[in-house]
This record gives sequence, structure tokens and C-alpha cells, in this order.
Amino acid sequence: MASLKEIGERALVDRIVKRIKGAAHVGPGDDAACIDINGTKIVLSSDIVSFDRHMVKGMTMEQFGWLAAAVNFSDVASMGAEPIGILAAVSLPPETDENVLYEIMDGICRCADLCGAEVLGGDTKPGPGSVCGTAVGVCGHGVLTRSGAKPGDMVAVTGSLGSAAAGWYAASNGIDGKAAVSDAVLPVPRVKEGLFLSESGIATSCMDISDGLSTTAHAICSGSGVGMDILWESLPVCKWVSRVSEELGIPEKHMILNGGGEYELMFTFDKKHLDALHSSDMDFSVIGMIMSGGIVNLITEGVPEPMENKGYEHFTQDRSQVL
Amino acid sequence: MASLKEIGERALVDRIVKRIKGAAHVGPGDDAACIDINGTKIVLSSDIVSFDRHMVKGMTMEQFGWLAAAVNFSDVASMGAEPIGILAAVSLPPETDENVLYEIMDGICRCADLCGAEVLGGDTKPGPGSVCGTAVGVCGHGVLTRSGAKPGDMVAVTGSLGSAAAGWYAASNGIDGKAAVSDAVLPVPRVKEGLFLSESGIATSCMDISDGLSTTAHAICSGSGVGMDILWESLPVCKWVSRVSEELGIPEKHMILNGGGEYELMFTFDKKHLDALHSSDMDFSVIGMIMSGGIVNLITEGVPEPMENKGYEHFTQDRSQVL
Repeated sequence: MASLKEIGERALVDRIVKRIKGAAHVGPGDDAACIDINGTKIVLSSDIVSFDRHMVKGMTMEQFGWLAAAVNFSDVASMGAEPIGILAAVSLPPETDENVLYEIMDGICRCADLCGAEVLGGDTKPGPGSVCGTAVGVCGHGVLTRSGAKPGDMVAVTGSLGSAAAGWYAASNGIDGKAAVSDAVLPVPRVKEGLFLSESGIATSCMDISDGLSTTAHAICSGSGVGMDILWESLPVCKWVSRVSEELGIPEKHMILNGGGEYELMFTFDKKHLDALHSSDMDFSVIGMIMSGGIVNLITEGVPEPMENKGYEHFTQDRSQVL
Repeated sequence: MASLKEIGERALVDRIVKRIKGAAHVGPGDDAACIDINGTKIVLSSDIVSFDRHMVKGMTMEQFGWLAAAVNFSDVASMGAEPIGILAAVSLPPETDENVLYEIMDGICRCADLCGAEVLGGDTKPGPGSVCGTAVGVCGHGVLTRSGAKPGDMVAVTGSLGSAAAGWYAASNGIDGKAAVSDAVLPVPRVKEGLFLSESGIATSCMDISDGLSTTAHAICSGSGVGMDILWESLPVCKWVSRVSEELGIPEKHMILNGGGEYELMFTFDKKHLDALHSSDMDFSVIGMIMSGGIVNLITEGVPEPMENKGYEHFTQDRSQVL
């Protein structure tokens, strides 16, 4: 007998997955479930975003709606699927002005539009302020999972790292609040990149970095039964990270390795595909290599040290501890 | 500018539906959305069930989980689709004992099992105690909607009415608590019935009675541009209704017409199909007829009077006012 707080979300998910028998083609346990219906692979993901956990200082309701949609489309993207639609179940206190609901829905619609998807339906109920989004996608090729990485594969990430953490610190501490929210905190789901990695057959594994780089690295290693060496000097870093570090004295490593709310993709691939990746218009950086054994190492100036799984843990951490 | 409480869920849903452009084959606005993927109709529905609104006195966590799954499968069933799976996004306070989560998941699994579906995935997050379920189904035939009823069609309901309201009053007032919850409050989604109505092509419209008989009658009439005469004496009534009415003095009409949490189906059909329906093993009762004009009448001892749309309204009503 232990509380959810003592156990933490990742261990809880592991325990639940063991209890349920899933007929899903992939998942439970991956970023999204995948089921085969009449030969078509349908990808589905549900994620809850709440005012008290995900509302950054200065964020508008429309931006909150965008975030709620984006975290779900990111899960669909990380499976290499094409987003089709989203259902949005919105809980709000009964005293809320109706425009808050409409603004949240507008944000969801805008993000869906960007991802080529539609708002299909949902629910509205009294509650403390949250959106449970369920994104639906379709996959014409193999789905991308956490479990195909092989020793010798290269490890890469899309975009740059640390933006959500740095943006949150910046907005919370009055450093260019509006710009920090819109530029650093709001994710753009990596739909195009996920589709390219899936359709080309290049990626051996893929996952979004929603709970932080260290957690994603550990999840891919655990899912694939491998280890990973990550080179500190090769990590692509968001411009807000150094500014926040300079102005607020927060260590860069903390923001880059363990910040939650990052929605870039981490993927692995055989090095023979490196030229094909460079020829594509994908924004990515090679950050390391898959190794045999189960250790995740961070190599800084040539010195390896084990990289702990210290990404964001729901239940055990307060929002203020996240980043 | 008005609060959600002043507007109420039904009007809010109408306003949201007008704001979003949906590519869904059916919905937003129906019980579930339906999208066509490579010629296969996929039906999707999200509904939130919460401790403070839906937890009946004496209910176990497993029963709460069952309820959370059942309300979603009911929406899939009312579209005439075959349930395939469910995603469950569970919010619980961090101090909650882990077993609460497992018991909720067990209830969801059991209900999914009964409906021939699987638990595909979901989410766990800190929150006040709620489950946002998303059920997925597939429809090999025409989907059932609220919009096909024609003057002259007969109106029928599956099962019996008033169970959720009567069960809630019984459990809350110490009348056979455990039996009232398991017998009256817990819905069994009408999957087999929805499939029969869809596959046979008999139903011209269909909807579940989740917000009460009066609300469903009004929704079908509004969706189809028709009116409805319902005969009070022909309504099939759950055995708990008269008992609760006798012991607690609560009017039967109140429980039967306006009680929320009822998960029977209301459907309409051309009277030429009555024999086919009677030949099936479906448990149903004819309760009225579709009329031209937009009025919903309740006819008691031959006297018609307009039946107001007084089913359960989220946001405007407390749980104690529901039933």
C-alpha cells in the first residue's frame, strides 16, 4: 500500500500495463496506442493538461488550448502517424466566463489546423480547469516505437532542447514574458518529421521528449534493451537556456536534460542513412550513439558519467519542481 | 459575457459546434464523432466522469471505473457501432492509495471486456478524481444519428426507465444501498441493440438517454425537425422507481422523465418493421410516435401536455439536483 505520490507516474503506468491485456497493435506503454482496423493502422493518444500544472505565467487561454492539442498531436507524430482529428474534453469551474471556453477551443482548433487535423468532438463538464485531449492519427507505414534501437545506431533529436524549461523560468521571472511563452513554451508538434521518419523507414525508434531528455533516453534504452552515449557538446540548445542561466543562475544541464514539456522527437537510425537525413529538410542534430548494455551515459569533455532518469514525474513533483 | 453556470452545457455545446469546422462524417453534436478512414467508419466519443458528480453513495472504485467506461461505450453503441477499445485518462489526488487506481482500471477493463473491447492506453495525472474515457468503435453499416426520424415513425426505448435516478435516491437514502448501486445505477451499454438497429437498417434515428428521457426526446426532434408524442402509460419503468416513490415520496415522473445517468437507447423506426423488431431478441418498448411540427408532448390518460426539456444540465445543476 503506497500513495500515487510515493510511486510516481512512470512506475504506475508500468504496473497498470501489466494488469491490462491489450489487443493494441502497439501500446499501452508507448506514446500512443495503435490498432489495426481493416488493415488501416489507427493511432490514438489521450493526455490531460491542467491549469495548475501547465499554465505558464502570462499564457492566454488560447495558448493553453493550443498546448492541450499540441501535446496530443506530438504523441501521434512521435509514432510516425498523420494526425486526423482530436476530441477535447474540457473541465472548467461553473463560474467561468463562457469566453474562456471559446478561447480554449479556438487554440485547440488552431493547433489542429496546423497539424492538418479537425476537432471532432469532446465533452464539457464542471471541474477545476483541465483539457483531456484525444488525438487520432492514421499510419500508412510502420509505426515508430521505443523498442527498435540497435547498438551502433546514431541518436538524434529534432529542433533544440531546453526551450520549455527556459521559457517557463523566463516567463515566471519576468524575462520577456510574452515572447518566452509564445517562442519557447508553446510546442509545435513534429508531425512532418515523424511522418518522414516513418515513411522513409529510416528510424529504428522514436519518442517525444515530453518528460525530459533523460527520461526519453532511458525509455528508449529500456524499450530496446540497449544503452546510449550522449555527447553533451553536441546537444542543440534553445537560445533561452543561456539567457535564463545567466540572468537567474539556473544550471543549463538542469534545463536541458530534465525539463518536462519539451516536444521535440528523439530518434535512432542506422548511420548509413545519415546522408539521406541531411538531404531532407528536417531540422535535427546527432547527439549520440546506441551502445550494448543498459547504461545511459552523458559524455562531457570526453568523460562519461551515468545520466540519471530525472525527467518530470507527475504525482511526485510539484509544478514548481518541474523545471 | 455570461458564466458557464448561467448558460448550461447544452447551449455551450451548440455554441462550440458553430465555432469549429468539423470534417467528421457525423458530429460534433451527436453522441459520438464518426470519421471515414480508407472507407472504414471509425466512431469516437470522449466523456468525463468525476467523483463529485458521479460517485453514488456506497459505490466501489471498481464500479466507478465501470461507469466511466460504460458511459463512453454507450455513446458508441447509440451510433450503432461495434466497440473496439477505450483510452482512460485518470486524474487522482497524489495522496491517493495506489490500489484506488488499480481498482478503477479493473472496472474499466471489465466493462471493456463485456463490450468486446480492449483498454488501449490513457494517461494518469494529479487531479481531483475523474476519468476521461475515450471509446473507439467501428461501424460496418450506416451510423445511427439523431436526425433521421420522420413523421409517422414509432418511438421506442430499450430496457426500462428511471433506474439511475431511483438507484441514486435509494443508495443515498439507505434503501438497499449495494443492490441499488449494482442493479440500478451501473449501466450496461446497449451494444448488441445498437448493432442490431444499425445492421438491420431499421432505425431512422437513435440516441442514448444519458441526460434523461425529456432531453433525448427534444434532441431527436430538434435534430430531425419533427415532434413527438409519448404515452405516459406505455413507458417501461424500472422496479426501483415505485419503491423509491413510495418510501421517499419522490414523484415517479421526475425520476422517469428527467433523471440523468440513464443509458438505454431511444430509437425511431417505420412501423412496418415492428414485427422484425419483435422477432429479434431485443428488449424494447414502443412509447410513442413521431409527429410533424416541433412539439414534444407527453400524453397522460389521453391528455397531451408539452414535455419540457428538463434533463440533467451540467454546470447549472448540482449533483443533488440531478435526479
